[in-house]
Amino acid sequence: MRTRAAVAVEAGKPLEVMEVNLEGPKAGEVLVEIKATGICHTDEFTLSGADPEGLFPAILGHEGAGVVLEVGPGVTSLKPGDHVIPLYTPECRQCEYCLSGKTNLCQAIRTTQGKGLMPDGTTRFSMLDGTPILHYMGCSTFSNHTVLPEIALAKVRPDAPFDKICYIGCGVTTGIGAVINTAKVEIGSRAIVFGLGGIGLNVIQGLRLAGADQIVGVDLNPAKVEMAKRFGMTDFVNPRDVSGDMVAHLVELTKGGADYTFDATGNVQVMRTALEAAHKGWGESIIIGVAPAGAEISTRPFQLVTGRVWKGTAFGGAKGRTDVPKIVDWYMDGKIEIDPMITHTLSLDEINKGFDLMHNGESIRAVVVY
Amino acid sequence: MRTRAAVAVEAGKPLEVMEVNLEGPKAGEVLVEIKATGICHTDEFTLSGADPEGLFPAILGHEGAGVVLEVGPGVTSLKPGDHVIPLYTPECRQCEYCLSGKTNLCQAIRTTQGKGLMPDGTTRFSMLDGTPILHYMGCSTFSNHTVLPEIALAKVRPDAPFDKICYIGCGVTTGIGAVINTAKVEIGSRAIVFGLGGIGLNVIQGLRLAGADQIVGVDLNPAKVEMAKRFGMTDFVNPRDVSGDMVAHLVELTKGGADYTFDATGNVQVMRTALEAAHKGWGESIIIGVAPAGAEISTRPFQLVTGRVWKGTAFGGAKGRTDVPKIVDWYMDGKIEIDPMITHTLSLDEINKGFDLMHNGESIRAVVVY
Ligand SMILES: [Zn+2]
Ligand SMILES: [Zn+2]
Ligand SMILES: [Zn+2]
Ligand SMILES: [Zn+2]
Repeated sequence: MRTRAAVAVEAGKPLEVMEVNLEGPKAGEVLVEIKATGICHTDEFTLSGADPEGLFPAILGHEGAGVVLEVGPGVTSLKPGDHVIPLYTPECRQCEYCLSGKTNLCQAIRTTQGKGLMPDGTTRFSMLDGTPILHYMGCSTFSNHTVLPEIALAKVRPDAPFDKICYIGCGVTTGIGAVINTAKVEIGSRAIVFGLGGIGLNVIQGLRLAGADQIVGVDLNPAKVEMAKRFGMTDFVNPRDVSGDMVAHLVELTKGGADYTFDATGNVQVMRTALEAAHKGWGESIIIGVAPAGAEISTRPFQLVTGRVWKGTAFGGAKGRTDVPKIVDWYMDGKIEIDPMITHTLSLDEINKGFDLMHNGESIRAVVVY
Repeated sequence: MRTRAAVAVEAGKPLEVMEVNLEGPKAGEVLVEIKATGICHTDEFTLSGADPEGLFPAILGHEGAGVVLEVGPGVTSLKPGDHVIPLYTPECRQCEYCLSGKTNLCQAIRTTQGKGLMPDGTTRFSMLDGTPILHYMGCSTFSNHTVLPEIALAKVRPDAPFDKICYIGCGVTTGIGAVINTAKVEIGSRAIVFGLGGIGLNVIQGLRLAGADQIVGVDLNPAKVEMAKRFGMTDFVNPRDVSGDMVAHLVELTKGGADYTFDATGNVQVMRTALEAAHKGWGESIIIGVAPAGAEISTRPFQLVTGRVWKGTAFGGAKGRTDVPKIVDWYMDGKIEIDPMITHTLSLDEINKGFDLMHNGESIRAVVVY
């Protein structure tokens, strides 16, 4: 079949919207009509050429929602008409990682996914001249239609709006999951969130949902305060306004250090501050942000010997097929908010404008609706 | 009263065995006759002058066992004749830390203990000319008699031999506790222990007790192999014999990385190797060793984002009054071994020889018996 897609032809160039060929689903695969997709920093990271593992030409996009059109042989958990969210972290429920009960980092299709290919080692996309186009993060939601493995699709309730729940495919789950799955924050906790962008806001609402008593937000940009308060931030700290030591300031504000701290900046210096602002004896610091290639975190080991724990999280520790449908329910039940974070809605033809908005810090999330 | 003690008169000099004055127990305090004490690297660290917080003159020693002679007003949990192990990490069961259920780092008497004083801010020891002598780590077991707060004494069964269970006051509990309390190792785990000294051996027997399937020991000294095997080591790696990348070698040996790794070297480069040799997705690395002042650990944050956890432990995460008596029971029941680790027994007059043995790597543990 043919479909319309925004193709990343090469690094550093705008996406090109064009018709492409799409082969139908093979065994264990599913053809999905994407109804909406968010534009995420990770897409930009790859498109810019900064991602050392970026491959071109490819169809980017990993934060989508849509409807199953057709299933390949052997697919049992999905049928045409089902509403789904693509998962860049699949959940096969059979590999050593899935069965460990300790991680969401399913390894079933990791190698081929990293090469922009389907599990059988081929691509379903090609240009009209036959040039193969690679998949991206196993999703390629910047195409109106895409093919995914069954294990990389979460089935969600049919009454949830695509243009909002697409954000659950990445940012919402990453932020809320970091709180719930990775940190396992308890009622009454004190927490600090570094970076009040889309991920930080979702960490904040995750903390509110988990019953945290104090939710400190840290950002250099005071324009972020209003939205962060709306999602549950109780205290704001602008590092520019702190004259002395930042760690000491945060430890005092949280009466001894935070029970949980979250880095959503990707800055390794901030990651160190986040660790050291965690409470002696039990404070845990969770790294969410992606650091520049080669950057390293460091601290004195005494910080760990006196009880602080340093962790990281990917896709919020969420097992996609199991957890994503629950988060959609939470949204539909009003337990979490998404609407105020979807600041811009665009057509596929306007997709490069969405990247500009993100660049300039004008959007929290821009969503393309097909 | 008067008693005999080995006094650290100043940094870098041998201990001087002499008669000293000891005041009786005040409210909440207990007079203990020390029957045996181990000599630990931490004593040497302080005596050498390398410890920036070392104070002199002081009576060192923190790994003892003895008998209660007299209790001060208000002491309810101990009586004369009780057998006890002094605790450099007390357990008040009332402070925020004790009540958190998340840490053993009781803060009730931390400030005065750090200054070499009893909780009322004074010392019980003095030289015969009246010069005050400081306490050390709240214990001062290099004195035949010493005074401790009630909350810093674990009551243990009376049939356990002092010259063996004194080691439970530090090294045994630190190593075994790191496995059981901090890492919470499960049956069937794979583990790597870096450094096969006294702490490392106790980590190894903790792993055996916890039912680990694979226990890899790493040390530069092949002379350590025999004893480590006796305590449960299943594989030995000498970094000098590994030609390629050490992390890759260990990951292959443990079939994907260890579920738990332990640093008992205090070397920050080894700490990094330990973290990175932990299994993707869930591997935890525990820092036990004490690093030189100012040394820092570092790694790429990607190591944590892909599921590794970096932790530390002090006194093996053990709550002394609760956990130390259990470890004494384990020793008496034959669940753990201590006897082969007590390689030398000395009189108080020979205590400096014990430091020499430790220096030269000739002892695992030298114990002074009064
Ligand atoms: Zn994303
Ligand atoms: Zn899996
Ligand atoms: Zn010690
Ligand atoms: Zn306490």
